[in-house]
Amino acid sequence: MRDSLLKIRISHEGNTALGPGKIELLLMIEQHGSISAAAKQMQMSYRRAWELVDVMNRCFDQVVVLSSTGGTHGGGAQVTEFGKSLIGAYQQILKKSAEASADELDLITRHLRKA
Amino acid sequence: MRDSLLKIRISHEGNTALGPGKIELLLMIEQHGSISAAAKQMQMSYRRAWELVDVMNRCFDQVVVLSSTGGTHGGGAQVTEFGKSLIGAYQQILKKSAEASADELDLITRHLRKA
Repeated sequence: MRDSLLKIRISHEGNTALGPGKIELLLMIEQHGSISAAAKQMQMSYRRAWELVDVMNRCFDQVVVLSSTGGTHGGGAQVTEFGKSLIGAYQQILKKSAEASADELDLITRHLRKA
Repeated sequence: MRDSLLKIRISHEGNTALGPGKIELLLMIEQHGSISAAAKQMQMSYRRAWELVDVMNRCFDQVVVLSSTGGTHGGGAQVTEFGKSLIGAYQQILKKSAEASADELDLITRHLRKA
C-alpha cells in the first residue's frame, strides 16, 4: 500500500534518469531479453521504450542496456551488470524511503479520499 | 545535491496528490496569499495553478487551499492548517528518504554523467 503510493524518481539535468516506468522497463527487458518484447508487455510503443532506454544510456557513464542489431526491431537486448546494480539500488531507495517515512506517509494516506 | 536528485510524489488513483510542483505551489500561495501571484512566481498559467490546487482539494478529505471569490482571477487564497501539515509531512518524507537511502543515492550519483 505504502510502496505503491510513494513514487520516486532520480532526476538528472531535467531528465528522469530512473523512475517507476524505467525500472519496470529494465525488469521486463531482463525477463524477455528484448526491448520490443518488453515494450509489448508494458503496452508501450517500441519507439517509446527505445527512447527510455536511450535516456538511461545517456544519463549514466556506463551502458545500462546493451542491444544487438538485426531484425526489424533490432535483435536481442540485455540489462548489463551495471544496469542490474541500478535496479537494485533503486529498489533499496524505495524500500528504505518508505520505511523511514512511514509515519508521514500514514498521515497523508489517512486523508486521501477513497474512490 | 542529493535532495535535488531525489524527486518524490505521492500518487493517488493515477493522480499525483503531492509532488515537487504542488508543494512549491503551496509554498508560493502561503507566501503570496493568492493563486495568481503564486502562478506568476512559478511562471505557470493561472489555469494550470488552479487545476493543481483543484486536484489536491479533490484528492484529500479536507480542504488544502481555501480561496475567496472576487476579482478577475478570484480573490485571495490561503493554505489551510491541513495544507500546512501536508507540506510539513512531505518535507519530512523527502528529508528522511534522502537520509535513509544516502548510500544508494551516492552509488547512482557517482555514475551520472556530468553535463
